[in-house]
Amino acid sequence: MHELDFFFNPGSIAVIGVSRSPDKIGSVIFQNFFDSTYTGDVYAVNPNAESVFERKCYPSVKDIEAGVDLAVIAIPASGVLQSLKDCIEKGVKGCVVITAGFSEIGDKKIEEEMAKIAKGKIRIIGPNVIGLYDSYSGVDTIFNAKYRQGRPGKGGIAFVSQSGAFGSALMDWCVNEGVGLSKFVSIGNRVDVDETDLLDYLAEDEATKVIAVYLESTKNGRRFYEKLKSVTKKKPVIIMKVGRSAEGVKAAKSHTGSLAGSAGIYSGLFRQAGAIEAKDTEDLFDFAKALALPRLRSGRVQIITNGGGFGVIAADAVVQNGLKLAGLGENSRKAIKRIVPEFATVSNPIDLTGNSTSKMYENTLKAVLEDGNVDAVIIILLLQVSSLESNVIESIIRMKSYGKPIVVCSTGGEFTDLHKKLLEGSSVPVYPTPERAVKAIRSLSL
Amino acid sequence: MHELDFFFNPGSIAVIGVSRSPDKIGSVIFQNFFDSTYTGDVYAVNPNAESVFERKCYPSVKDIEAGVDLAVIAIPASGVLQSLKDCIEKGVKGCVVITAGFSEIGDKKIEEEMAKIAKGKIRIIGPNVIGLYDSYSGVDTIFNAKYRQGRPGKGGIAFVSQSGAFGSALMDWCVNEGVGLSKFVSIGNRVDVDETDLLDYLAEDEATKVIAVYLESTKNGRRFYEKLKSVTKKKPVIIMKVGRSAEGVKAAKSHTGSLAGSAGIYSGLFRQAGAIEAKDTEDLFDFAKALALPRLRSGRVQIITNGGGFGVIAADAVVQNGLKLAGLGENSRKAIKRIVPEFATVSNPIDLTGNSTSKMYENTLKAVLEDGNVDAVIIILLLQVSSLESNVIESIIRMKSYGKPIVVCSTGGEFTDLHKKLLEGSSVPVYPTPERAVKAIRSLSL
Repeated sequence: MHELDFFFNPGSIAVIGVSRSPDKIGSVIFQNFFDSTYTGDVYAVNPNAESVFERKCYPSVKDIEAGVDLAVIAIPASGVLQSLKDCIEKGVKGCVVITAGFSEIGDKKIEEEMAKIAKGKIRIIGPNVIGLYDSYSGVDTIFNAKYRQGRPGKGGIAFVSQSGAFGSALMDWCVNEGVGLSKFVSIGNRVDVDETDLLDYLAEDEATKVIAVYLESTKNGRRFYEKLKSVTKKKPVIIMKVGRSAEGVKAAKSHTGSLAGSAGIYSGLFRQAGAIEAKDTEDLFDFAKALALPRLRSGRVQIITNGGGFGVIAADAVVQNGLKLAGLGENSRKAIKRIVPEFATVSNPIDLTGNSTSKMYENTLKAVLEDGNVDAVIIILLLQVSSLESNVIESIIRMKSYGKPIVVCSTGGEFTDLHKKLLEGSSVPVYPTPERAVKAIRSLSL
Repeated sequence: MHELDFFFNPGSIAVIGVSRSPDKIGSVIFQNFFDSTYTGDVYAVNPNAESVFERKCYPSVKDIEAGVDLAVIAIPASGVLQSLKDCIEKGVKGCVVITAGFSEIGDKKIEEEMAKIAKGKIRIIGPNVIGLYDSYSGVDTIFNAKYRQGRPGKGGIAFVSQSGAFGSALMDWCVNEGVGLSKFVSIGNRVDVDETDLLDYLAEDEATKVIAVYLESTKNGRRFYEKLKSVTKKKPVIIMKVGRSAEGVKAAKSHTGSLAGSAGIYSGLFRQAGAIEAKDTEDLFDFAKALALPRLRSGRVQIITNGGGFGVIAADAVVQNGLKLAGLGENSRKAIKRIVPEFATVSNPIDLTGNSTSKMYENTLKAVLEDGNVDAVIIILLLQVSSLESNVIESIIRMKSYGKPIVVCSTGGEFTDLHKKLLEGSSVPVYPTPERAVKAIRSLSL
């Protein structure tokens, strides 16, 4: 077992700073465990209360009778050092320090002290973090109330974010789109555990298929680069590095107290290390969803659509992204001709027209995926037309067995969203525009 | 009144091709009027039924006793010419021909005949269209069932689409995001009414503030260009021209039977005519939402955020898009310092931190908008944090009175979506990523 595993699979958790007021950060974290799947014990710590939310409250972590693996510290900055010392005395293995107000506002002293007293005795995530989340173990130290920020279901993407707010917005976005996460960690000011440690941990984590990282700076560039180089041999790693302009660098400095460095140098290092760089927020999200698909060895893409216009847009985008439109073999073409309506176009794109049915999609997909001239498929699925039954979702999910990358483009509203979530829940990535679907396919060749 | 107004404000409508089977296109169109706000009479035509859906059915449009302004033809291609003749005989003013299977599959003859017999007697939209929609009059000839495709509420964007499926997917998307439309028209194979006629009509339409156009080709390039040049002096026009690659051109030909032509030439002409070109689907949607805002004369943008990371990303994007970060005046800075938390950053971005409240947003916005150094504001609103009350929405809407462009970036799930729709409903455009918000601001300077 990895040395950092107690952060994600602790036997028990103490939340330090649970107040009687339900809106306070520590209280939200504690309450979030009430309807959690986490099976260990969770203790509340607050020297000024005997009980909170009808649960017993301990004056100090040291007063908890049983052992504590993980402590979440959510108290004012002035008390953090003492709490940390208490945790060490108690034998706590890891601390998540939520508290902000340290190096990001220019005060490095307490952080240096934290690092010093923790060394060799306890591991620390933070300070200035939003917490961590594990969809499998149910550990959830995120201080946002669940009605405001959803918690993603189980999935293959692990997400490490230097920014807490960025992380929580993306988790919330994931829920909306039906995208699952294995783990989320906000790393903040990194007095101890940093992006490199987490790369090392996540590389070995079975639930994690893709690692996504949001960075403003690296804590130790050389160490990160070496680790990254080895991890990308095992799993795809996608990194969004912000602070790309002088103005952005300045903004980053006042955010997590970090020096963002030159964008060009970072890009080069990421590429050399075999990582994929996301140049904007949408790419980070879109590519992370795609990267669990099989790698694209050659770039011959077949488009199947039931809307001519979307087919044209996708064809344009395939060419603009340096991919190729696949040329179907004569046998596939003949097979498809027998399936589709008379006035459908069997070329690339294949346009099943507004009369498309799920049977047509299924049979066309089979013929296309069996064709050796096709490396990847973009399915455009416009669910506004009545002829297309919902079981097209099942057909598409079944096609994963061919082992070729398949992405779906589906644009629309409520009805479309319902179907989109079903696909995402079965790890078929769905994009709202043809251009984003094509870029996602392209990310598989990077 | 414009000569095409009967399409959008007809006194009465006949739907030709309402079958007893509720799923057929004509039946869906007829049934969609059952819970519509349209106040005129709607008649069903079908020679093989005496009544449909408990309403009287007429054997021919000629048998309707009262006058008919608009006819919707949704019968097989072979019967379209006869129906058109009946409509002319009846004195119908305009026809929407939904039926497909003409020039887009290589058969131009019937279309030529349609144009010939209609000339001077009746106006035609189509064939091969999804229909038209007017959120104000309630006219809705879209053949998608409402549970599959939503109908947008009232709004300032008119949307003309050569592709029906593209149009219906975008309408559906609008509903999901709370974006309103004034009118939607699918123009299909254009035997008569084309994009130029509609530009002319929409330029005079009071409800329409922005005209968005999806084109695979122009029917008459010179005529379109001249009209466009005059319309852009009155209202912003945004055009997405697809078929940009040779492959896309080929796909477009089999879609609406049109020759897509060179992307470079089109781009040049659009620019000369004062139109804004959307180079991808997302830009079309994003810019159309923004373009009703005041134009951006100078590009000094102030960012206000409650998430540091998003602020950094926005700052990077401002610079990358050729805009400038505004430098606040000393008075504004002092005023804001008094409002925000101690460890907030008052620069550009202004970071109100995770402790932001709606009061802070309101007061900061006021100070920023009163500052002569600021031309436009990007508000990043991360609603995951509990301190931020919902009435921040009201504060932002009030700020429109300053007459400066304001866009919002809000990323998240269900809770965020609710608030996003409230903003969109008051014509404050909202984007899910900082990059898209910045690009939208930039579109105001194009």
